Amino acid sequence: MRGTILHAPGDVRLETIADPKILAPTDATVRLSASCVCGSDLWDYRGINHVAGPTPMGHEYVGIVEQVGDAVSTIQRGQVVIGSFFASDNTCPICQAGYQTSCIHREFVGGAQAELLRVPLADGTLVATPGIPTPDLIPSLLAASDVLGTGWFGAVAAEAGPGKTVAVVGDGAVGLLAVLAAKHLGAERIIAMSRHEARQNLARQFGATDIVPERGDEGVAKIKELTDGLGAHSVIEAVGTQESMMQAIRSTRPGGHVGYVGVAHGVELPGEELFYSHAHLHGGPAPVRRFLPELIELIWTKQIDPGKVFDLTLPLDQVADAYKAMDERRVTKVLLLP
Amino acid sequence: MRGTILHAPGDVRLETIADPKILAPTDATVRLSASCVCGSDLWDYRGINHVAGPTPMGHEYVGIVEQVGDAVSTIQRGQVVIGSFFASDNTCPICQAGYQTSCIHREFVGGAQAELLRVPLADGTLVATPGIPTPDLIPSLLAASDVLGTGWFGAVAAEAGPGKTVAVVGDGAVGLLAVLAAKHLGAERIIAMSRHEARQNLARQFGATDIVPERGDEGVAKIKELTDGLGAHSVIEAVGTQESMMQAIRSTRPGGHVGYVGVAHGVELPGEELFYSHAHLHGGPAPVRRFLPELIELIWTKQIDPGKVFDLTLPLDQVADAYKAMDERRVTKVLLLP
Repeated sequence: MRGTILHAPGDVRLETIADPKILAPTDATVRLSASCVCGSDLWDYRGINHVAGPTPMGHEYVGIVEQVGDAVSTIQRGQVVIGSFFASDNTCPICQAGYQTSCIHREFVGGAQAELLRVPLADGTLVATPGIPTPDLIPSLLAASDVLGTGWFGAVAAEAGPGKTVAVVGDGAVGLLAVLAAKHLGAERIIAMSRHEARQNLARQFGATDIVPERGDEGVAKIKELTDGLGAHSVIEAVGTQESMMQAIRSTRPGGHVGYVGVAHGVELPGEELFYSHAHLHGGPAPVRRFLPELIELIWTKQIDPGKVFDLTLPLDQVADAYKAMDERRVTKVLLLP
Repeated sequence: MRGTILHAPGDVRLETIADPKILAPTDATVRLSASCVCGSDLWDYRGINHVAGPTPMGHEYVGIVEQVGDAVSTIQRGQVVIGSFFASDNTCPICQAGYQTSCIHREFVGGAQAELLRVPLADGTLVATPGIPTPDLIPSLLAASDVLGTGWFGAVAAEAGPGKTVAVVGDGAVGLLAVLAAKHLGAERIIAMSRHEARQNLARQFGATDIVPERGDEGVAKIKELTDGLGAHSVIEAVGTQESMMQAIRSTRPGGHVGYVGVAHGVELPGEELFYSHAHLHGGPAPVRRFLPELIELIWTKQIDPGKVFDLTLPLDQVADAYKAMDERRVTKVLLLP
């Protein structure tokens, strides 16, 4: 089959590689309907994460089950399925508490920018759609696999809800979908922090009531100004840098909640400032599996349209162009069709 | 009056100083029935916190209202009252959300190791007891002013409750009272981390079901061993050092809660580890005022006996000995009688 391999920073190629096979009786293989490039793929592509050797890329997927192992009992051939970037058994105490990305048997799912994908722990990991989706639903279902689920977790971790003022730090696909999640969860006011017009517009479509283009200390001052000097009740951090984390913490009122989902890179949190901030801090790799049944239902019934974050669709052949366009911030997120 | 002044690290003296006066119409003055030395006073006494000049010490108090300002309406002369180390209006949005130690009008209450104390924002800050307490209740009521309220907040922030395994890092008065709080909140299993026999015994009296003397990585391994390899649901941090914070975070299962109430000194939290820990983090200066009515009721009706943390009582004249005994860890906490 054809699959995407990262060889070195900036060097990503579609190549002919071996088809994935059922390795464990709990595996399934999935023929992908669509895949995409994630903001977190750029950490590898930019050489910020060390990549030890040629690496199959991609961890967001929607597709049709092609084969299942002997121990797979609920997932069946022919079903359209979505899963998260971490396979999980969905039965251990950690999964049962809703933290499937920390499942005691978790396994990273890599190599989704391809035609076929092996998914471990298929019964625990994959969620089937109610039927065969019409093509217009594919982008939104694909978004549920990671960026929507991650933005959703950020909003839940930040306790966005009725009566709350929510600020979102980061205007990538995750930040924008955190706006959508906060809106769906009933937030009263949603402040998107963005300086890009196209992203500001999408944030507004998703439910943002205010836009703050300022960053860092100026951004914090602006949030305070909009909230009687107190700060937001809920702040979602969707970047992962020192600046964005501190911007999030400092934008939160005492007793408020920071939900952080940007993968932390080089972040060191000053204990004393955190102590006196009185903020709640929660985040990490989003347990997308917890939210998938609800998200699929909301997409299926057209209550939400998270697929709008894809502003470019390319054939898998042009995967290198997809990385380049995202790296240069010319587009928000690229959908790849096999 | 006589009051305690810290002049330099290790140099604390009882001196004759001016009586505190009503300065603002919202002030009250309180004649102290008892005061005590706090673990956080030791940061100053040991020279770890910079102290700019002679400083009145003490911030834990129970006493009788002597005078009230013209704008004080609910607190009255002759009432026995308890307050927190931060005065708060108890009406601003932050107070109303339960974070009185971050009140927009908060003011530190200092100088309680003395005969008289000025308390700002008396109506918001002070809570009166149901009547004149018998002397045996004084230690417990005094404990409510800080160490009990702080341990309680730690347990609430860590979401200690039914079905939960709770670990407590730190066996000072706050840690021991966090054990008591976790017990009262219904925790199923309470692991006190302590290597001092007297403190282990008190922890058991307060409700600890297990004692772990190991610290750092060994302590973490022991907590994991006691919890099927998962970590505790709730961990209360009551020290404030890098080691104790990391011990707390690493002892928490994914999705679990760390409640941290040790005043952070030189702590830097590694963002990436925190991200993948999936822990909830919440803490800071305990909003004791939130809990005071309930704590006073529990003490008044003898449901809890937090005064047991005082293992030495000295007259105010011997305040220097009190600091010395706590600094040398010969005692857990000293009660001072004027």
